[in-house]
Amino acid sequence: MGKCVNHPDRETSYLCMKQNIYMCEECIKCRDPEIYCKYRPSCPINFISKKGVEGWIGEEKKVAEEIETATVLFEPDKKEITVPKGSTLLDAARGTDIHINASCNGKGACGKCKLIIESGQFETDDTPLLSDTEKEKNYVLACLTKVKGDITAKIPEESIEKQLKVAGMGEDATKKLKGFVTEIEPMLVNYSLELNPPTLDDSVSDLDRLNRGLKKAGCDVSRLSVGLKVMRQLAATMREDGWKVTASVLHKKCSSEVLRVASGNGLKRSLGLAIDLGTTSIVVYVVDMADGTILSATSGHNRQAACGDDVINRIVCAEKDGVKKLSGMSLRTINNLIGEAMGGLEDDFKKIENVVISGNTTMTHLLLGIEPKYIRREPYIPAVSEFPILKAGNIGIKANPAAAVFIMPGPASYVGGDIVSGLLYTGFHREEPLTLFIDVGTNGEIVLGNKDWLMTASCSAGPAFEGGGIRWGMRAEEGAIEKVSINPETLVPEFSTVGDLLPRGICGSGMIDLISEMLKTGIIGPNGKFKLESDHPRMKKYNGEGSYVLEFAKNTAMDEDIVFTETDINSLVLSKGAVYAGFSVLLNEASMDFSMVDRIIITGGFGQYLDIERAISIGLLPDLDRDKFSYLGNSSIAGAYMALLSNDYRKEAIEISNSMTYIDFSSNSKFMDEFTSALFLPHTNMDAFPSVKVGE
Amino acid sequence: MGKCVNHPDRETSYLCMKQNIYMCEECIKCRDPEIYCKYRPSCPINFISKKGVEGWIGEEKKVAEEIETATVLFEPDKKEITVPKGSTLLDAARGTDIHINASCNGKGACGKCKLIIESGQFETDDTPLLSDTEKEKNYVLACLTKVKGDITAKIPEESIEKQLKVAGMGEDATKKLKGFVTEIEPMLVNYSLELNPPTLDDSVSDLDRLNRGLKKAGCDVSRLSVGLKVMRQLAATMREDGWKVTASVLHKKCSSEVLRVASGNGLKRSLGLAIDLGTTSIVVYVVDMADGTILSATSGHNRQAACGDDVINRIVCAEKDGVKKLSGMSLRTINNLIGEAMGGLEDDFKKIENVVISGNTTMTHLLLGIEPKYIRREPYIPAVSEFPILKAGNIGIKANPAAAVFIMPGPASYVGGDIVSGLLYTGFHREEPLTLFIDVGTNGEIVLGNKDWLMTASCSAGPAFEGGGIRWGMRAEEGAIEKVSINPETLVPEFSTVGDLLPRGICGSGMIDLISEMLKTGIIGPNGKFKLESDHPRMKKYNGEGSYVLEFAKNTAMDEDIVFTETDINSLVLSKGAVYAGFSVLLNEASMDFSMVDRIIITGGFGQYLDIERAISIGLLPDLDRDKFSYLGNSSIAGAYMALLSNDYRKEAIEISNSMTYIDFSSNSKFMDEFTSALFLPHTNMDAFPSVKVGE
Repeated sequence: MGKCVNHPDRETSYLCMKQNIYMCEECIKCRDPEIYCKYRPSCPINFISKKGVEGWIGEEKKVAEEIETATVLFEPDKKEITVPKGSTLLDAARGTDIHINASCNGKGACGKCKLIIESGQFETDDTPLLSDTEKEKNYVLACLTKVKGDITAKIPEESIEKQLKVAGMGEDATKKLKGFVTEIEPMLVNYSLELNPPTLDDSVSDLDRLNRGLKKAGCDVSRLSVGLKVMRQLAATMREDGWKVTASVLHKKCSSEVLRVASGNGLKRSLGLAIDLGTTSIVVYVVDMADGTILSATSGHNRQAACGDDVINRIVCAEKDGVKKLSGMSLRTINNLIGEAMGGLEDDFKKIENVVISGNTTMTHLLLGIEPKYIRREPYIPAVSEFPILKAGNIGIKANPAAAVFIMPGPASYVGGDIVSGLLYTGFHREEPLTLFIDVGTNGEIVLGNKDWLMTASCSAGPAFEGGGIRWGMRAEEGAIEKVSINPETLVPEFSTVGDLLPRGICGSGMIDLISEMLKTGIIGPNGKFKLESDHPRMKKYNGEGSYVLEFAKNTAMDEDIVFTETDINSLVLSKGAVYAGFSVLLNEASMDFSMVDRIIITGGFGQYLDIERAISIGLLPDLDRDKFSYLGNSSIAGAYMALLSNDYRKEAIEISNSMTYIDFSSNSKFMDEFTSALFLPHTNMDAFPSVKVGE
Repeated sequence: MGKCVNHPDRETSYLCMKQNIYMCEECIKCRDPEIYCKYRPSCPINFISKKGVEGWIGEEKKVAEEIETATVLFEPDKKEITVPKGSTLLDAARGTDIHINASCNGKGACGKCKLIIESGQFETDDTPLLSDTEKEKNYVLACLTKVKGDITAKIPEESIEKQLKVAGMGEDATKKLKGFVTEIEPMLVNYSLELNPPTLDDSVSDLDRLNRGLKKAGCDVSRLSVGLKVMRQLAATMREDGWKVTASVLHKKCSSEVLRVASGNGLKRSLGLAIDLGTTSIVVYVVDMADGTILSATSGHNRQAACGDDVINRIVCAEKDGVKKLSGMSLRTINNLIGEAMGGLEDDFKKIENVVISGNTTMTHLLLGIEPKYIRREPYIPAVSEFPILKAGNIGIKANPAAAVFIMPGPASYVGGDIVSGLLYTGFHREEPLTLFIDVGTNGEIVLGNKDWLMTASCSAGPAFEGGGIRWGMRAEEGAIEKVSINPETLVPEFSTVGDLLPRGICGSGMIDLISEMLKTGIIGPNGKFKLESDHPRMKKYNGEGSYVLEFAKNTAMDEDIVFTETDINSLVLSKGAVYAGFSVLLNEASMDFSMVDRIIITGGFGQYLDIERAISIGLLPDLDRDKFSYLGNSSIAGAYMALLSNDYRKEAIEISNSMTYIDFSSNSKFMDEFTSALFLPHTNMDAFPSVKVGE
């Protein structure tokens, strides 16, 4: 018996072995994650695991009986989980390691979290987001389906996670990146020392002797500290191999710390990780810290996708279920990717001693378990902009627990470390030409400036470019339609897909092509409405609204028509309008206009497949000299790589973050005007798009 | 079942619940502390506690049966402990909290660890160190007595710990100490802040806002870092009480850290501890950090006394039983004293936020659990001289776990932080006059110098001055003979005791008086041998050697003669000779002589009762103008107090430590010469003692 951790006046016999705390009956039955279990992320579903009562001792039977549970088996992953009856399939999926996409965070609005029920008892709400064909095949939306008994559910073929292309990889990219770093200066440095043994005439303490050796080896010892653990073992370690030692020193921003002293001075391989922590996908590079070689690279979908597509949904989810849950999700993804990337190397995880993480402000807050609540509330305040150097063990990253972790600083709630990282890589902030830097994803982040000044803003582009909120929208994965042209005579489209497979949907670049072509061929007008006769074979009603058939069922991977609806067009127009308005207003704030811009740098995964000409034709990008545009790939991971190897770049990142002036659009009336004007194709002001011809 | 932590190839069912590790049968029966239990200090006696098997589950019965145990009850403390049969009573006593003195560290050589067996089975070796009277009264030496069955043992009246006088206390001392500190600058500072709420125009991160507030409040934020835990709660905490917060910042030597942020900005009382960690006794001051008032003070015997009187024996013990055991002993003493000192105050331990500890090099190493082995091996190297600021929770001190702990730096293995602390207090290193600073205890530490230079050395005075190795020697506790004069006619002594009680023994100042008087009255000659006829009523054979009866049995607390033997005289002569030789050689190293010394400062508990005139007459102190001598009390605790309150003094302490030149006497041939010359009373060279007249 013990006192309830939440109600000290109550005696209880429920003891959680994981936490070694007592909880009263009310608390263990309560589903509020803040109350019933602070270790929830590591406990598959609440306190009840597969065995019904694992994690609890005491009157466990009683608990198990009172809360009825059922088991859900997910195919083809064969992941099983036990949940209280009444949970949704989305809840169950979130408790496992399977990849499920829930753009709208379980509101039943996006139709992405499709599952096929193979057997079992359930209740599901009807939804227009599933076609009749799908319903016949036992498709359900996971968020609308309640578990009533043991269930076997299958992830449909079209939803199965495909390997993402790792942007910026390959020998050329590696060579290019290496060229940026002239001197390798990690945060955690191993100094290999051979010290003079003490004598009566040279009787300084062991620690002073070590410091002397470190100084001689070029280590700045003026602000060096050392922990109790190292001091305790120092005398023995230093004598073990005749005064040959290896000292691992963590160089922090304003001080250094001797983390470890080992006997012997043969240097072992030291690895580093550069991590791009995206809202959608995460990229991990494993780097040899001796020479900067990228030894391997992996990427995967951020498991947080089960809690919505965009950062706002993630924050909402964190407020509901606790930050720890979201933290655990991205951490699991990162650790899985590290595991994959390390798989081919013959090195232990403990050799990973340096880590740099580049992500937007919400992603870094969630990863570190920092309250993100006020990021989405006016006046939009992040808890932390500039992070101290942390240790991997404290965060939970699969590396040497003492590994140093540098988090890219982010100047504002909606302009984060990924953008700072991008600047580090592109380097335009060191040069004269006036540059517009764009990273378009769910959020469109923009930086304008040069070596003298930097202004930045974020416009809520929405998830359309990444496939969110679009009936057949998807990311640039295998089977995604990525290039489209339409025969102006027959109005029949031609397209190519990623991996040359049967089409499964359409990704951002495909949509831009499609709208550009529909506009050019007169299928739609500048207002985004269909002009095509409703009896044309490519015209079809979809849930009561007009749509263009991109491919007929028989030629698709799912035996269903791939259509693009007026709602889809509208979503895309809203997105491109927001981005374009962002450019305009930022220039306006700097009392400038498009003609003064010397170059436009596009980065991010989305930009990779973007056709500049077509992006201009729909008014997403400004109508400037095409030579001014360049695409620089995943600049976030590139900057992370540079900061991993160079102390100068880490310092520069902090300087960039501190020197940016953030313009908030949410309270900017000019932005609303510009936005409204940009809701035409390409724009209400056609003078701004002299090179664009809109078809009949 | 699990794998043995020491032998991974062995499966075992013995699981220690404290450590959550498995151990094989061999390991749990093995008595080597490094093997069987790394948590030994918190486990009363090995892994077997009072209940026989507590701390272990598995086949515990078997263990309990195979290792036969017995219970020892110590009176009058009523402390009980279960030990394996065959353990010595000293082993058992060391496992409890009772105070037992074992000057020789259990070798059966000092005769200090006396106990009276009231009942029970035991085996004991015969020893000449117990008188027949004592043997009749069932006295045994704890170190020579093996437990064979349950035992009740009593601590003899004369060995019961008496309250030590707390040197340097009282209102005057407090007032004087306060005067030294002009500005209070703790290490851990609580900043009370009222911040401006964020707006769209002032949207810096919460952490930046906090830093801004701290800067405004005068905190140096240039090297400020913050931990993950604080960052995680920051957003909520700052908003909880309308942007009123209290931030606790730890100012380290070269950087600062925000340790805690709490909502609300009402400042609470903050306490500090100044601790003098002596080999023999420990003194604790509780200080109000707001104004420097000493709220309470306590002192007690260092529990490590059970492992020997001097630092060498402590190190030997640490090598045998593990540093953790010795660390635990001094930590227990300190924590008991903190408990006592806090008893009268209505404050929680968590209010203790700053701590300064001043002790010799061995004491600080042992307290912190740092390997002390090489301190006693040529070339006598401490592991650490200058300690970083530590946290109370990491050391185990009963205070706020985040409390900052400053350890006084010590320049050498045998000149430690207590001496640096003494200099800080006496301040002679800031002044012109050439000063000889002496702290005589078990070791005699000497500093010579002034504002321009400092030389230091240590001479092994041995434990005689503190009562060690002297038949009736004791510390200056109640019942100790502290002043002696001898009637030159009758040769009958007159004396006074501490507390005016029946005599129990003789302390250092009493011995110096006694030898001085015996020399003056011609009872002994300058060679330390008795000249008195053997039929004189005060002359008595003791274990076959001549001795002088200081008091007859009927007038003592123990009904036994208090005698002073030739061996005792010899011990004292060796001690005083070492100290005097130390003075001579140190001056010689500086190419100086006694005539150039402007003043002699004596500190330490021993000096308190010292009669300068008599100390000169036996050649302990040099024969200089008596006005040059001054006694400055417990300068170690005084310096600790000053460093607790002032950052300048903490910096000064490090400077003092770094600026001292240490002279090693062990390899100094001049020292041996001087030592030999000083083994006469007062000295072979009587020209150096013109004012001393030796009697017939």
